[in-house]
Amino acid sequence: MGQNYTFEVGERMDNFRFYVPTDVRFGKDRLEEELTDVLDAYGKTVLLAYGGGSIKKNGLYDQITKLLEANGNTVVELSGIEPNPRTETVDRGVALCREHQVDVILAVGGGSTIDCAKVVAAGFYFDQSAWDLVLARRTFAGPALPLVTVLTLAATGSEMNSGAVISNLATNQKLGVGAASMIPKASFLDPQNTFTVPQYQTAAGSADILSHLFENYFKVTEGTDVQDGIAEGLMKTVIKNCPIALKTPDDYDARANLMWASSLALNGLTGGGKGGAWSCHPMEHELSAFYDITHGVGLAILTPRWMEYILSDTTVGKFQQFAHNVWGITETDPFTAAKKGIQATYDFFKACGIPMTLPEVGIDEEKLEIMAEQAVKHSTIEKAAYVPLTAADVTNIYQECLTESSFI
Amino acid sequence: MGQNYTFEVGERMDNFRFYVPTDVRFGKDRLEEELTDVLDAYGKTVLLAYGGGSIKKNGLYDQITKLLEANGNTVVELSGIEPNPRTETVDRGVALCREHQVDVILAVGGGSTIDCAKVVAAGFYFDQSAWDLVLARRTFAGPALPLVTVLTLAATGSEMNSGAVISNLATNQKLGVGAASMIPKASFLDPQNTFTVPQYQTAAGSADILSHLFENYFKVTEGTDVQDGIAEGLMKTVIKNCPIALKTPDDYDARANLMWASSLALNGLTGGGKGGAWSCHPMEHELSAFYDITHGVGLAILTPRWMEYILSDTTVGKFQQFAHNVWGITETDPFTAAKKGIQATYDFFKACGIPMTLPEVGIDEEKLEIMAEQAVKHSTIEKAAYVPLTAADVTNIYQECLTESSFI
Repeated sequence: MGQNYTFEVGERMDNFRFYVPTDVRFGKDRLEEELTDVLDAYGKTVLLAYGGGSIKKNGLYDQITKLLEANGNTVVELSGIEPNPRTETVDRGVALCREHQVDVILAVGGGSTIDCAKVVAAGFYFDQSAWDLVLARRTFAGPALPLVTVLTLAATGSEMNSGAVISNLATNQKLGVGAASMIPKASFLDPQNTFTVPQYQTAAGSADILSHLFENYFKVTEGTDVQDGIAEGLMKTVIKNCPIALKTPDDYDARANLMWASSLALNGLTGGGKGGAWSCHPMEHELSAFYDITHGVGLAILTPRWMEYILSDTTVGKFQQFAHNVWGITETDPFTAAKKGIQATYDFFKACGIPMTLPEVGIDEEKLEIMAEQAVKHSTIEKAAYVPLTAADVTNIYQECLTESSFI
Repeated sequence: MGQNYTFEVGERMDNFRFYVPTDVRFGKDRLEEELTDVLDAYGKTVLLAYGGGSIKKNGLYDQITKLLEANGNTVVELSGIEPNPRTETVDRGVALCREHQVDVILAVGGGSTIDCAKVVAAGFYFDQSAWDLVLARRTFAGPALPLVTVLTLAATGSEMNSGAVISNLATNQKLGVGAASMIPKASFLDPQNTFTVPQYQTAAGSADILSHLFENYFKVTEGTDVQDGIAEGLMKTVIKNCPIALKTPDDYDARANLMWASSLALNGLTGGGKGGAWSCHPMEHELSAFYDITHGVGLAILTPRWMEYILSDTTVGKFQQFAHNVWGITETDPFTAAKKGIQATYDFFKACGIPMTLPEVGIDEEKLEIMAEQAVKHSTIEKAAYVPLTAADVTNIYQECLTESSFI
């Protein structure tokens, strides 16, 4: 470890800002008592944003609309937000907010719904299209309407951070944007609202949480014991609780731990102070942009192959730490330990029922090269990743995903 | 484990609110660029609160007063805040704020200075004495002046939470108070500002951080993998980095990890969702109230004896987990593993140079019983601790601290 790295030894943690003013209301049955009080701080006209209708099946839609009606709110609905939310849907939401002069947005759903709502919130004050706003990426610094969320899926962490990912199918682009103004003002995290999440989505969400932790954990910045210790604790939490939730979907503690882990994995706790770019997310975003696959599944497929691809004398120490602290692997030979950790990661995803090859999700060799070029073009992985990756490297990693793998 | 516990299995994590809107500016040399911008959001008249003058020796006082002068601030000083801040000092600060119509408080120091500044901030709007405010404890819900901190000691976590502890030597009381309004608006955490902290205070501060983690970790609530995983990661961070900081006081990463661990140990991450009372803090507060000893030292002395005292069939599982995950003890016999973990905790504090008996800090048998009675009276340890403790139990634990101990 340390070869890529340019700071003085003993002076390595980067400066960072940690500012997460989201008022998290975690636990059971809080909406009845607290939701309208929280919303009333911002006004009476609410944009209710949600996805494909699962909240109508599980009763959450009825519960919330009744609460808002009893509270005298004017409710405007933005429904049908896609799993990979599209820029056209954001435009539609912005138009609704302007037409009805919305005071506050209430997003009820998973990361896609919340991401869409964030860009709607900022788009309200932005005088160009939603896609122009997305193209500003992390440089966007405009205001946004206040956003309150009711989370229904443990996965992206969007409920407690500033980021959003929006897709443009016309250009095959899936890009992140974010600003302090887009951090939710309050988020209701009731584990019971994830009891009805199907097994496939539960597994994919857990893979997404783990990937956020891996991306922040495997970085060139050293000396970040706080961040890495928290990441290891959260990884172990997901690895323990995802199988419980798959077997017993209404196990409260399993759902609670997955939900809280999702928020903390990507709110700055594990990434603050650690420079450099992510690796698997840019590679996965192209799979989703070209084939519209489930984000977490793409990440699960890519992650172990990426880990093996970058394993070297430089990185083996960190992979051995990962194998030991996260998977309890006590093997003392560094490379053997590292490979066992990678195998354990692969086996875990597979045991959770995730299809672990690209053909299983409908992706063949045809577009691997163009997706690899786009992954490099849309990100800084060629220069700033844990181990920098060229388009050729990305193609190689994609190709490893065409068939089942063994790492030991 | 689990005997004291009344929830359904699989439905154990308590509801909690996590709301920590402190804008943390972590890292090197940020004051020049950022301090006055942060303060200007609240106004131009600043109460500068600090302790015994160490900030005059290390240059921080000069740096800050020059910045404020150049920015056109009116500065009022509250100096001489004690290591266990006294209620009379709070009253003095409140009077200064009223006399000069202060807009914002800038606390430069460790937990004592910040704690004092918090109660001054709330006392400004409170029409009785500071001690009356403290006696309201956690029920206090009034407003407070905005508070910004510049941290100089990794220990209490006060820089990122709502709590404060104030001493009344006239009544031998040391009590906690807290309210959402008292959470710092912003905190500057520059590890370099702790390079000059003496060894004894570095060790005592680390013991304080560890104690916060222990208090939250050893609780009756089960199923809190997120909280406990984070706590274990932070414990390992302190155990690794405290000895480095003792040996090399200007090791940036060691100081950075201790500083960030101090903030995260007590901001709700490790305690949220876990009910019940703390154990060692109420016992230690009486030692400090009666003998004015260093808080972290008192905690270090008490902790291993408390651990051994409460070790039982009920608690041994958690202690084995602690021994394994934090100390790397692979012993499979639960009680042997637990005792090795307790011994490791004791040995760690001792190796850090902390005096590990009460007589070494000037406390003999004389007042043990009355302090034990007060510890029970001022807290809920008799009913709500991990293992409930009567005054007789507390006396027994105090007595174990009179001589050196061995736990295996």
